[in-house]
Amino acid sequence: MAVLVQKYGGTSVGDAEKIRHVAGRIAAARRAGNSIAVVVSAMGDTTDRLIELAESVSGAPDPRELDVLLSTGELVSCTLVTMALREIGEEAVSMSGAQAGIRTDTAHGSASIVEFDAERVQQALDAGRIVIVAGFQGVTHEMDVTTLGRGGSDTTAVALAAALGAERCEVYTDVDGIYTADPRIVPDARKLSEIGYEEMLELASYGAKMHPRSIELAAWYNTPVLVASSARDVPGTLIHEVAPTEAGVEGEGMEVANKVRGVTYERGVARITLRAVPDRPGIAAAVFEPLAESNISVDTIVQNASAERLTDLSFTVDRTDLRAALEVTEGVAGAIGAGECVSHDNLGQVSIVGTGMQNAPGVAAVMFSALAEAGVNIEMITTSQIRITCVVDEGQVNDAVRTLHDAFELGEG
Amino acid sequence: MAVLVQKYGGTSVGDAEKIRHVAGRIAAARRAGNSIAVVVSAMGDTTDRLIELAESVSGAPDPRELDVLLSTGELVSCTLVTMALREIGEEAVSMSGAQAGIRTDTAHGSASIVEFDAERVQQALDAGRIVIVAGFQGVTHEMDVTTLGRGGSDTTAVALAAALGAERCEVYTDVDGIYTADPRIVPDARKLSEIGYEEMLELASYGAKMHPRSIELAAWYNTPVLVASSARDVPGTLIHEVAPTEAGVEGEGMEVANKVRGVTYERGVARITLRAVPDRPGIAAAVFEPLAESNISVDTIVQNASAERLTDLSFTVDRTDLRAALEVTEGVAGAIGAGECVSHDNLGQVSIVGTGMQNAPGVAAVMFSALAEAGVNIEMITTSQIRITCVVDEGQVNDAVRTLHDAFELGEG
Repeated sequence: MAVLVQKYGGTSVGDAEKIRHVAGRIAAARRAGNSIAVVVSAMGDTTDRLIELAESVSGAPDPRELDVLLSTGELVSCTLVTMALREIGEEAVSMSGAQAGIRTDTAHGSASIVEFDAERVQQALDAGRIVIVAGFQGVTHEMDVTTLGRGGSDTTAVALAAALGAERCEVYTDVDGIYTADPRIVPDARKLSEIGYEEMLELASYGAKMHPRSIELAAWYNTPVLVASSARDVPGTLIHEVAPTEAGVEGEGMEVANKVRGVTYERGVARITLRAVPDRPGIAAAVFEPLAESNISVDTIVQNASAERLTDLSFTVDRTDLRAALEVTEGVAGAIGAGECVSHDNLGQVSIVGTGMQNAPGVAAVMFSALAEAGVNIEMITTSQIRITCVVDEGQVNDAVRTLHDAFELGEG
Repeated sequence: MAVLVQKYGGTSVGDAEKIRHVAGRIAAARRAGNSIAVVVSAMGDTTDRLIELAESVSGAPDPRELDVLLSTGELVSCTLVTMALREIGEEAVSMSGAQAGIRTDTAHGSASIVEFDAERVQQALDAGRIVIVAGFQGVTHEMDVTTLGRGGSDTTAVALAAALGAERCEVYTDVDGIYTADPRIVPDARKLSEIGYEEMLELASYGAKMHPRSIELAAWYNTPVLVASSARDVPGTLIHEVAPTEAGVEGEGMEVANKVRGVTYERGVARITLRAVPDRPGIAAAVFEPLAESNISVDTIVQNASAERLTDLSFTVDRTDLRAALEVTEGVAGAIGAGECVSHDNLGQVSIVGTGMQNAPGVAAVMFSALAEAGVNIEMITTSQIRITCVVDEGQVNDAVRTLHDAFELGEG
């Protein structure tokens, strides 16, 4: 009997009617002959309401207490889903994170899973029961409740699937899959039927619906993850290990052969350029260590080839971090004998993502010429194994996304 | 350092402002040099709302799941009180029933405490922390969450006080103590400064604010319980072992010497009389066993002295049980060769309660003549060691309570 792990997000269990709907879906999967474990998030805006409640009694709620408070949201939803399943005749049982065997470190508010002993879940599955696990939570070795922070319930689901050796982790949410681009910008954006872990990571870090940590976990354990809609019965997107194939191969693998899988973007990007930097070992560390210490996250970094042992060093940060980053960088500039510091705070970036790209040198050329034809000036370029990113003027981001989506023929039909 | 256990009910922690108020009271007790453990109920109507939520997804919510769901109410309030204490500079830590060491049987919805290992609470107190324990809940040996049913949080508090060997268990609620009678009926009802466990048991079983199980537990461990108002800073009522004293003794023990401590009442009483019952061994069992099997609770039982080996047997039941009780009793009447079955469904009862009564035969006479003078007809009489109860017409209950309160001079001044 195949073991499936399903995960339902907060909007999918937002009220009694939705909970009954979810119970019906779970029961259908069970009756189809699968062994089912389910992970649920807190109902709707429960977590926000609990945070408000905490802030109504404390300016800075204690992290340990806040974790216990927040963990109640998932306890409520998982017991309600269990009751709804029993109401329609299914043998179901709820488990808290602790009962399910999720042991974490003590980093309250953003704990990491250190051990997942799924024995109790496995025993219940073996006894023919559907197990409903409270997402987002675990316990320390002292049995203190922790929460897993952002993407926590997705992480619980993938970790449970890995611990059970499940055939698949199905993540049901309010979107029905992963798209080639943001449908709000590109009306003919197409839903992908499958995507690789690394591709998904690149897409996810640009705003898609699964947190990178859960994708990384799925990749590490090679657990296939299906992202689909909880409301509509339409095919979702399967995130799994995609074997690279050649373009033009017929059948299931064909879509994979399209080297560019999607277009992503980001706004609110600021760039700092440090001019006339002495080109000697240790300079990059001298610039970026103080930024890291100030908790400023640096994204794209470009260092031009040096001329006469002086180079220009550019990097991007989130616009909200620009002022702090400039302060740090100007201090460093003096210390290392670099020239002036200039900034530009009105940028965005567009990226094309796909695992096949590295073996297809033409892809970059197509990207650059398409942007040029559309009149989009490229401010910076960076590439990774599966991604090419261009920093552009923020006002041209939408045009750039649409242009690239067309250029790589990612749309429907 | 004296260890105090305080318990705050749902209305006392009903919103953020009340929670901050409660935190202030706890902090004051701590700063007065006590070691403090606190038990809290769920905020306001939380438990009712959770039950509604359960009933919105299931006609008959599974008891195990319902217990997990309901237990979240106390987790929320205990973390909020803890946060509010930390906000005002107190070292406080919350504990779930499981963390506090409350082990119960598996009777979901009405579990009994089988073991209270308060070691973790004690260690935290020893470290100078205030411990806030979620009331109403425990765990089974399989770490399944249970709830203690009616009076659960009071029971948690008394059990914690007993386990810690606390000096006193202070129960803060929306009333400020135990009164000589219901103040809605008797305007000059007086608050008692102290009362014995058994007296409190008799008063509690007639509708006062603490559940008998928590009083029985306190009596068993000889733990003094103070019932007082969480809103107003006025003296409450101390429930403790009261030494019988002679009337007229001066000083603190004087009040105790008033043999009658209070007047209680009940409405909605129905009586069934089985006439011409053969007076032989086993007859009472033949009548009352079938009633118990039908889950009908019988209160007062009176059997008159027999004449010619035939007797009349009367007993009272709650009015809502009358129809079912009659059906059972009529079946039994035929089987044992008794006469007709008659019922009266419009009764109530009034009781006077006090430990000194048994040594003061005049008390019963005062009660009966006072009722006679007020024109109240007595339908049945029963007595226990510390209580005399008269069944009367329901419409005369209020008159009877006021009459008795006056007759025993229980009022103010």
